[in-house]
Amino acid sequence: MPATPSASYSLTLRVRLEHKPGMLGEVLTAIGNAGALIGAIDIVEVSQGHFVRDISVDARDQAHWELIIDAVKGVEGAELMDFTDRTLTIHIGGKIAQANKYPLKTRDDLAMAYTPGVARVCSAIKEDEEKAFQYTIKGNYVAVVSDGTAVLGLGDIGPEAALPVMEGKAMLFKEFADVDAFPICLDTRDPDEIVATVKAIAPVFGGINLEDISSPRCFEVEARLKDELDIPVFHDDQHGTAVVVMAALLNALKLTGKRLEALRVGMVGLGAAGIAVTRMLLRGGVGEIIGCDRHGLIHTERDDWAEMHPLKRWYAENTNFSKRSGGPEEVLEGADLFIGLSGARVIRHEALARMTGDAMVFAMANPEPEVMPEEAAPYVRIVATGRSDYPNQINNVLAFPGIFRGALDAGATEITEEMKVAAARAIAEVIPESELSEDYIIPSVFNRDVVDAVASAVADEARRAGVVRNQGPAIDSDARATSRTSPPARPVPAS
Amino acid sequence: MPATPSASYSLTLRVRLEHKPGMLGEVLTAIGNAGALIGAIDIVEVSQGHFVRDISVDARDQAHWELIIDAVKGVEGAELMDFTDRTLTIHIGGKIAQANKYPLKTRDDLAMAYTPGVARVCSAIKEDEEKAFQYTIKGNYVAVVSDGTAVLGLGDIGPEAALPVMEGKAMLFKEFADVDAFPICLDTRDPDEIVATVKAIAPVFGGINLEDISSPRCFEVEARLKDELDIPVFHDDQHGTAVVVMAALLNALKLTGKRLEALRVGMVGLGAAGIAVTRMLLRGGVGEIIGCDRHGLIHTERDDWAEMHPLKRWYAENTNFSKRSGGPEEVLEGADLFIGLSGARVIRHEALARMTGDAMVFAMANPEPEVMPEEAAPYVRIVATGRSDYPNQINNVLAFPGIFRGALDAGATEITEEMKVAAARAIAEVIPESELSEDYIIPSVFNRDVVDAVASAVADEARRAGVVRNQGPAIDSDARATSRTSPPARPVPAS
Repeated sequence: MPATPSASYSLTLRVRLEHKPGMLGEVLTAIGNAGALIGAIDIVEVSQGHFVRDISVDARDQAHWELIIDAVKGVEGAELMDFTDRTLTIHIGGKIAQANKYPLKTRDDLAMAYTPGVARVCSAIKEDEEKAFQYTIKGNYVAVVSDGTAVLGLGDIGPEAALPVMEGKAMLFKEFADVDAFPICLDTRDPDEIVATVKAIAPVFGGINLEDISSPRCFEVEARLKDELDIPVFHDDQHGTAVVVMAALLNALKLTGKRLEALRVGMVGLGAAGIAVTRMLLRGGVGEIIGCDRHGLIHTERDDWAEMHPLKRWYAENTNFSKRSGGPEEVLEGADLFIGLSGARVIRHEALARMTGDAMVFAMANPEPEVMPEEAAPYVRIVATGRSDYPNQINNVLAFPGIFRGALDAGATEITEEMKVAAARAIAEVIPESELSEDYIIPSVFNRDVVDAVASAVADEARRAGVVRNQGPAIDSDARATSRTSPPARPVPAS
Repeated sequence: MPATPSASYSLTLRVRLEHKPGMLGEVLTAIGNAGALIGAIDIVEVSQGHFVRDISVDARDQAHWELIIDAVKGVEGAELMDFTDRTLTIHIGGKIAQANKYPLKTRDDLAMAYTPGVARVCSAIKEDEEKAFQYTIKGNYVAVVSDGTAVLGLGDIGPEAALPVMEGKAMLFKEFADVDAFPICLDTRDPDEIVATVKAIAPVFGGINLEDISSPRCFEVEARLKDELDIPVFHDDQHGTAVVVMAALLNALKLTGKRLEALRVGMVGLGAAGIAVTRMLLRGGVGEIIGCDRHGLIHTERDDWAEMHPLKRWYAENTNFSKRSGGPEEVLEGADLFIGLSGARVIRHEALARMTGDAMVFAMANPEPEVMPEEAAPYVRIVATGRSDYPNQINNVLAFPGIFRGALDAGATEITEEMKVAAARAIAEVIPESELSEDYIIPSVFNRDVVDAVASAVADEARRAGVVRNQGPAIDSDARATSRTSPPARPVPAS
């Protein structure tokens, strides 16, 4: 299937056109004939019988660029002056910045924000460390931590090359949930050093979002940090995915009338996300899960048991009790739900016939799913993918911004399993039952109701479970001046 | 000396006043009689014969607050509803935030800033790590790193309590030099762990500003990081102070006609700043320096030589060749310049008579100098302090923003001694010789010419010395799309 032109491969073409009727139309027609989609058209300069215009075009890939460029060059009266890669251009200088909340223009500003006034704030925090959540950025800042070992589909590309992704993640936190986030890309892949580094920098942060750390190190790193820190630690590749899969599943069950407890699930891809999804399904009561990694269906009598990582052994011991063996398509046999978190086209569409009636397929490999939705459609009732150009996109951005927003709002000390389940339910419930359909089981990433729903569900659950820090008096009353004598007779909080 | 009312102890008083002529004047008079300075006055609410107003007042200290509050309460027809500490109030939620450089509102935005488009940026950096300086925040982000062991005059207060200061420092970087800065407060004080942590997080940063790390660990930490990282590492407490002291001295020498090489310097306080200043003076050619720490004048035959830290031994070996001994005032004997980086009033003003004619006193202890300027004035020609309420404030903010701005602009891999000297000269030269006077040897911290002068002097020196990274093509041309075929016939950089 040829790729659709997309913004990720868009160009800005700077073209100098003779100023005569039909000229622009001719150029745009040539671009269209080359298969590109045209976006914004701006005038850059008008001079002596010429117009200079910037034309934004979406292309399929880099090879496509040359066809588009040749097309423009072939138009008489048009001269291609320059072309720029829009994606690279918006990355120049990075995508995020530091912002001061107010300017420092006078000596008074300095005396309050810095010395000598700041000393009083420092002393207040020294007396009660929890006040750091009130008087510093700690209350709203999350670290996005990666060692660059499992970045997107690119794999182990190192910390510098991972930084654009972590900046992007920080942008998503800010845009969707007003959570301040800072990328921390680590020049080490040793779990001990990762844990030590994150612990060392933790005083500045109210939460830690682990990202794109390869399996199985990610499990150890997360478990140790959760244990040793008193702020939420969340490996998004695991739990963000699990939460959104669960949300999609909850709605899919409403449509198909199936029950979680009776569900038979086949899963291909047992990396960080696959294991986290399995854990959440098992906790949700799913009875039968059969998983497949690159060595085939996993069970306790598989040949490689001796060398198997403890996590895989845990998997084998808790799934596939009938010890079925075989390749990826074997997981489909009698399954109600197929979950793919592996690679492109590992399933032939015909094999979906082995699933039950009203089957559900969540094929989340990116950019190419385990089976293409249009090919799966004849065999199953519901298809979801990780892609934005098909219905039912399972995208972590539905989960992590709201989860951290809720955790920070509540002063949560951790993100519990129940908080994740609350998040999944909240996402699912954003879609009214009356609007649910096979093509609409999960809200759009741009549905702004999602983050509020998730945040308040997560915060409520944290408070219910009591996993929140002992917060002092509310901010307003605490900021009230404490003189050495009695407070004023009738204190009223400033509005 | 009673303290002057200052913004660092300012209150906002919320007062409910009967709506009758003279009421506001009466309240303000009462506040004034209590010794407070009145700032902004705002109307909050008008209702049924009453005005609610917020009145900002500067006080001397916390004890003074109670006098002011009592004064307001004593006015008939006025009711004090609430009062808030303005310094604490502006710290609520922290002083800095993360800002996205553009919004993420559409699928196209996501496709370019995040997946799938970002993958192309990651790949470009993976191929050439230096591109991280172009396409990520690394090119303009500095870490402000502290372990919270030597914060202001507060000492060892720990990482959380140090955070408001480091946020303030980050604000100064942004406000004065448009350098993005992020506070890193470390939950460790072990030099090995500090070095390991900073190295681990270095991929995100273009420079490291060490701050408020106690001596002598700060020297080891800085030396190792400078050695092991390929980005500038700068301990501001040392070098920022040394640069500004040198700048003040260069101008003081112009006034007094003394020469650096012939200068006799007495110094009290041999912490990080004192040692750095001494080093810079020695490199500048100063022949005679006599230093005094808490055990008295330092020399190679002092009783505690056996237990002396190697840095102090270095000091003893390079100063006080006549092996003079005694207490702080002994350094004044025959000295042209006194430098104090120690504590309040360690020098009796009468002792300044032991200095040469046209003597200079830089008494930088904060908030109370080694000797008060008005008391020193009869004995010496020039007095500088660290305070903003006297002339000649020696303040690091004159140095560090411009030094990092210049280093980042040039792509410097380190900050050399020559770059620091260039910065000192640039600060000094901001004041035209015609304007130099005993009360104006150093520019104001709000003189916006300083940062540009320092940045360009530092960048020029970095380029001259060749301590700059191999930068690829200029940003504009590099962002130009690279198709797999030939570039366009006549590439013209986008303006």
